[in-house]
Amino acid sequence: MLSAADNELLTRTGRGTPTGELFRRFWIPALLEAEVPESGGPPVRVGLLGEKLVAFRGKDGAVGLLEARCPHRHASLYWGRTEEDGLRCVYHGWKFALDGQCLDMPAEPQDSSYPGRVRAVAYPAQVAGGIVWAYLGPREHQPPFPELEWTTLPDGWFHASKRHQRCNWFQNVEGELDTAHVQFLHSDLGSAYRHEAAELAAKAGSPRYIVEESPAGMLAIADRDIPGTGDKYWRITPFLLPSFTLVPSMPGNRQTFTAAVPIDDENMWGFTVTWRYDRPFDDADRENYASGQSLHVTVDPRTFVPLANMDNDYLIDREAQRTVNYTGIAGIRNQDLPVQEDQDGPVCQRDTEHLGTTDRAIVAARRLVLRAAKNLANGTAPSQPQQPTAYLTRSLAQRADGATPWRQLWAAAQPGA
Amino acid sequence: MLSAADNELLTRTGRGTPTGELFRRFWIPALLEAEVPESGGPPVRVGLLGEKLVAFRGKDGAVGLLEARCPHRHASLYWGRTEEDGLRCVYHGWKFALDGQCLDMPAEPQDSSYPGRVRAVAYPAQVAGGIVWAYLGPREHQPPFPELEWTTLPDGWFHASKRHQRCNWFQNVEGELDTAHVQFLHSDLGSAYRHEAAELAAKAGSPRYIVEESPAGMLAIADRDIPGTGDKYWRITPFLLPSFTLVPSMPGNRQTFTAAVPIDDENMWGFTVTWRYDRPFDDADRENYASGQSLHVTVDPRTFVPLANMDNDYLIDREAQRTVNYTGIAGIRNQDLPVQEDQDGPVCQRDTEHLGTTDRAIVAARRLVLRAAKNLANGTAPSQPQQPTAYLTRSLAQRADGATPWRQLWAAAQPGA
Amino acid sequence: MLSAADNELLTRTGRGTPTGELFRRFWIPALLEAEVPESGGPPVRVGLLGEKLVAFRGKDGAVGLLEARCPHRHASLYWGRTEEDGLRCVYHGWKFALDGQCLDMPAEPQDSSYPGRVRAVAYPAQVAGGIVWAYLGPREHQPPFPELEWTTLPDGWFHASKRHQRCNWFQNVEGELDTAHVQFLHSDLGSAYRHEAAELAAKAGSPRYIVEESPAGMLAIADRDIPGTGDKYWRITPFLLPSFTLVPSMPGNRQTFTAAVPIDDENMWGFTVTWRYDRPFDDADRENYASGQSLHVTVDPRTFVPLANMDNDYLIDREAQRTVNYTGIAGIRNQDLPVQEDQDGPVCQRDTEHLGTTDRAIVAARRLVLRAAKNLANGTAPSQPQQPTAYLTRSLAQRADGATPWRQLWAAAQPGA
Repeated sequence: MLSAADNELLTRTGRGTPTGELFRRFWIPALLEAEVPESGGPPVRVGLLGEKLVAFRGKDGAVGLLEARCPHRHASLYWGRTEEDGLRCVYHGWKFALDGQCLDMPAEPQDSSYPGRVRAVAYPAQVAGGIVWAYLGPREHQPPFPELEWTTLPDGWFHASKRHQRCNWFQNVEGELDTAHVQFLHSDLGSAYRHEAAELAAKAGSPRYIVEESPAGMLAIADRDIPGTGDKYWRITPFLLPSFTLVPSMPGNRQTFTAAVPIDDENMWGFTVTWRYDRPFDDADRENYASGQSLHVTVDPRTFVPLANMDNDYLIDREAQRTVNYTGIAGIRNQDLPVQEDQDGPVCQRDTEHLGTTDRAIVAARRLVLRAAKNLANGTAPSQPQQPTAYLTRSLAQRADGATPWRQLWAAAQPGA
Repeated sequence: MLSAADNELLTRTGRGTPTGELFRRFWIPALLEAEVPESGGPPVRVGLLGEKLVAFRGKDGAVGLLEARCPHRHASLYWGRTEEDGLRCVYHGWKFALDGQCLDMPAEPQDSSYPGRVRAVAYPAQVAGGIVWAYLGPREHQPPFPELEWTTLPDGWFHASKRHQRCNWFQNVEGELDTAHVQFLHSDLGSAYRHEAAELAAKAGSPRYIVEESPAGMLAIADRDIPGTGDKYWRITPFLLPSFTLVPSMPGNRQTFTAAVPIDDENMWGFTVTWRYDRPFDDADRENYASGQSLHVTVDPRTFVPLANMDNDYLIDREAQRTVNYTGIAGIRNQDLPVQEDQDGPVCQRDTEHLGTTDRAIVAARRLVLRAAKNLANGTAPSQPQQPTAYLTRSLAQRADGATPWRQLWAAAQPGA
Repeated sequence: MLSAADNELLTRTGRGTPTGELFRRFWIPALLEAEVPESGGPPVRVGLLGEKLVAFRGKDGAVGLLEARCPHRHASLYWGRTEEDGLRCVYHGWKFALDGQCLDMPAEPQDSSYPGRVRAVAYPAQVAGGIVWAYLGPREHQPPFPELEWTTLPDGWFHASKRHQRCNWFQNVEGELDTAHVQFLHSDLGSAYRHEAAELAAKAGSPRYIVEESPAGMLAIADRDIPGTGDKYWRITPFLLPSFTLVPSMPGNRQTFTAAVPIDDENMWGFTVTWRYDRPFDDADRENYASGQSLHVTVDPRTFVPLANMDNDYLIDREAQRTVNYTGIAGIRNQDLPVQEDQDGPVCQRDTEHLGTTDRAIVAARRLVLRAAKNLANGTAPSQPQQPTAYLTRSLAQRADGATPWRQLWAAAQPGA
């Protein structure tokens, strides 16, 4: 249970809100690199933290990220023309560099000093790991880029996707952290598509939770006994501020990163990246992530809204719900969507919930975010953005004999171990 | 004319509003029995009085009616799995009995006392006459079930239907009570489909109104002279609290019940039931009520929105309006919808209306509801819910010689007379 | 830049707002004459200045314009029956004359004086130049009809069209006045469809602006040198209160009138009329204005929403934007729509804009409207409505030798010169 005031604080991310300002101290995913594939290609609309932006690819492949409204009379730069060194508004031809500087006002007198004095709001953007990342905070606090593992891997070793999810960002974070739901929401009753992690979780039953803070956020450690074997099934989920989760999955040799990025307070971008660290993807990998059955969901290519969505009841098949899987909905991510998007509607009211023992990780994540947001509001900046190497970490999903401590498994699973 | 304050009071039905609390002292129609046809079938969404509920059919045919949001973390139970003894949330498998008691929390330790201490909000539901009825009020005030005539008849003697109407509930009540409009809105100019009651009303002309209170509400008695005959055409319409009307129709031997049930303050369920009291329906009866031409309208089977609706201008045919019928719209109920759904938009502003002499029944019904709502707010509960036999009554539409008093006709028309 | 308070004042036009009251002192376009083609035809919905109205054609071709809600119980008269002398509500048959007087209440006693005491809200309407004009202000201040040139021409000499534009009215006014944008927004990069005025503007470059007040409003005079020729390219745009513009176009012998009429504060009707003053339209003229490529845009015939609109990104073709024209959007008016409808969304926030030297005419128009609105609020009525001959004027787009003063060109271009 969260007080209504803390729930408000947790869920509001516009400029000037404590949690909104916290987000503005981190590099966050803004759009897929594939949305701005080439220099000179058209700009695309990007909603982030309640702000309306446009992204475009300038010369040398650099990506510009500008406030959508032209500083002149606020026509949207989305309709604009991308040029080598900037984006030009089609209304009167004002051109802006990637850093927002106005480069040209063709309707002004040629000797005017006015262009040099006008700037569009612009944010630093960086391409890494198939994603364009943005920093929307104060320039003097711009942090180093987090060393997330796949962002250093070559193309072909990872798959990055994006979806428009119609709920507040934290409902998705709770779902990503909530390892206790896998043996229910994602359980198979006999379908052809098997989900190894869910099956093992179902066999093992309900987890005990340990939560530990970590340099980039916290670890949610789920400890399950596998009855009659003496073995344990460990799932360790790193939560990385501001809103990233490394979701444990099986088999090993691959990792999944997810990010919940507010578009506004009732909509979010869900980014998902899966990478292998043993070898590049093969056809089977590619087919798997293109299938829409995993955490990567099939979306409308124009809007990024999942094809199975609230408007069509997520294509629920009530007969399949009796006989095939728990939800009657196909696909892991598709199964997450209804429970996250339909929690009191788009913003969950947490002051009337009834938490259980398996919600410990969620409670810890709320406290972590709220504490960081309040600290920042009181003048103490978050430490995590300044620790880029803390983001070079992995999740763990592993069956092991009951005697081995989790710290040993965990250490062995980390990059470079 | 109603003051803006009284209009607000009349039209608002959320929890805690005077009229909302009045509704919560009665059994009201919630959904069609056909929507939850079988034990173990999927839950369905039900909006009632501003509350979001789900209904499902448990074992033995009993119907459960729960608040949609799971008490745990508010995922909607609509996505849930119906089991023999309750409804199970798909997020973490919490199961709730028909009375709201949590029966299972599979992710909690097996010896936990937590399930016994958690309840979902649940309302009593009862199946009668093709309809699932609900009581949303305080348990200690739960009234006996009203003895509406058809609810005691066997299947095959009645037809029950439901529509989603996009306006405040009282606009529909006014239309049901407003017998003065039948010779206009519902008049034929030469169509094949004849409406006997409207024709007789047109012949007779405008009614004088008598209003009498009755144990369950009031009677609206319309007294029309049939010129040149010495006969009268009587239409007597019982209005039964909180929002039920028995609409007079011809020929005799059948009765029509309607209920206006708020979904929220700008949307309502319109329930309509027609029954015969002389014999079961035959094919002609069934065809009549399936035609969409009567008070039973053809709807989208998923949403219950009438196929002729505001979005398509109710399929109005302006050429037919010149030559075939008064509105250019086919079907009695379809003709009611535009004038009710388009009265200042969804909520009529009654402080600027100009009432006529034929609005007397409407004025009386407003006063009846407002008085009962205000009395309840002041601590005096309504008497009507405690008088179930008062609901065993019929309407009357009858041509009779002018000398016979209406009370005599009325008494003779009542069940058991 | 405009203060937020003045921006509010400029953009709000409901009853009782200063700018709304200013609009209510003028005859304004309400709908196309073609929407009410014949006496006795069905009524049509008309939104004007935040008011919901219906228009219909009575006997002798006169047009009635009534508040949509019936004074009785507010059913919409849109569903009504048009009769020789008025419009009849289908709910209870009340009939209203074109001046709003209730003519019949068939359900009231025959000797009732009630009909004579009930009036619908009705506004004077007048058909001229293919348009139904309305006056929504106080009857005692009803002005003479403005002598706009084409309203005195016979059919066949002009083309009038209407579109539903999804933005505040003043964003459109600014676009109409903003001659500086033609060489950008409307420039061709090589398409088959050539826009002579835009080409000349592009050749000449950026204008100097002179603004002069005029009896009906003001003149925006754009003065461009054509390099290397000693010639000038003059564009003179009359802005006529409350919201009319005469847009300069080439070749000569034709004129274009546009009006921005608020439906509400986030939607407007855009009326466009083009007329010739030398001869009736020929087939080429008719094809031109039917093409959707000019200031007359192709619309959905039911809603008047342009077929290229925000929902489909105005059918922008990004490849065409590189190679064919500046915007990748086909048609002059279609090119205007995205920059006007997407200026901070439907209501531009002018307190954070950065105006340039070519915005002088826009600044002047804002001041003119604001001053007139404030004066009226302070008791001084606008003079323009009382000067109908001041509306008999033309725009000018002309290349001329640099020595000729604009006043001479202007005088020679006026009607009757």
